[in-house]
Amino acid sequence: MSTPARRGRPGYDLESLLQVAVKLFNERGYDGTSMEDLSRKLGITKSAIYHHVPSKEELLRLAVDRALNGLFAVALETESFEGRAIEKLEHLVRGSVLVLIEQLPFVTLLLRVRGNTKIERAALARRREFDRLVTDLVKQAETEGDVRPDIDPAVTARLLYGMVNSLIEWYRPRRGSAGTELADAVCKIAFDGLRA
Amino acid sequence: MSTPARRGRPGYDLESLLQVAVKLFNERGYDGTSMEDLSRKLGITKSAIYHHVPSKEELLRLAVDRALNGLFAVALETESFEGRAIEKLEHLVRGSVLVLIEQLPFVTLLLRVRGNTKIERAALARRREFDRLVTDLVKQAETEGDVRPDIDPAVTARLLYGMVNSLIEWYRPRRGSAGTELADAVCKIAFDGLRA
Repeated sequence: MSTPARRGRPGYDLESLLQVAVKLFNERGYDGTSMEDLSRKLGITKSAIYHHVPSKEELLRLAVDRALNGLFAVALETESFEGRAIEKLEHLVRGSVLVLIEQLPFVTLLLRVRGNTKIERAALARRREFDRLVTDLVKQAETEGDVRPDIDPAVTARLLYGMVNSLIEWYRPRRGSAGTELADAVCKIAFDGLRA
Repeated sequence: MSTPARRGRPGYDLESLLQVAVKLFNERGYDGTSMEDLSRKLGITKSAIYHHVPSKEELLRLAVDRALNGLFAVALETESFEGRAIEKLEHLVRGSVLVLIEQLPFVTLLLRVRGNTKIERAALARRREFDRLVTDLVKQAETEGDVRPDIDPAVTARLLYGMVNSLIEWYRPRRGSAGTELADAVCKIAFDGLRA
């Protein structure tokens, strides 16, 4: 064993290591990426990685938790809101778009998780919890007469977040483009439609 | 070499072989599936597979072409339409949802293609061509005053198909549920919004 001071390269703390790992997981798939691949990419030894984090699964947990915590923080804000369910729903959608933009690689990883390991199944369970929350808001807004009653609320919720989540497929950050503008676009189309 | 009559199992023609291959590609990823895996899944030898199809890539090509041909057939129908661009756009969206539902595993595979091989790059090029077609319709409809002018048409097109394509993540065929109902729901929300 080398001395702790020589472990890892200067410049790699847990955060920067996590960033590289998430990028690699998104490129090659989580299952398709080994700690060996990660150590090659980072240019440090595997034991230097294990100095920061005990396993590949732990990197996945940190990554998907960041995405989920961002989304649930917006949901919590929404709950403390006074007002009609449709306003809460709009706040949730707007906030979700901003989380997706700010944490793009982390949310991308989260949305591709399939559930082969305990960490993945836990992430999927929290995603389902979030989806239920969205569906409940849609239902409540429908009861209040603010959401069209001619579509199953679960379908409306899925289509709404289908639109939001599609951002990971095509959104690329550009200098000078504000996330709030995209969040506005999503809300306009989802709530009022693309028709003039 | 065995005689042709003994190649393959009775019951596997190219079509049923393709169905199994696409299911496996969707479960494990195209890159992560070998012809060995496929032969094990089918319970036939690799040479029996090669009797039907020369390579794994050819299976991919057949699969993504089926999805793309379905989508472009709707686009072609749309072009021959008389009428306003927004009506064409609605026809295209409705038809795309039906193609997604009818060819779900094939479209799922298409939408996950990343472009590592020639076949994949060709599929991505045709997807981009389709996207341009959608964007052009949105632009034209905006010029005709039928689509809201306050959002970049390319963004509108992407959000619209983000919603459509999200179906591969959550739609599961159920007995008695008509695809046309879901196509209606998508059009209602996309064109007129979820607000009552």
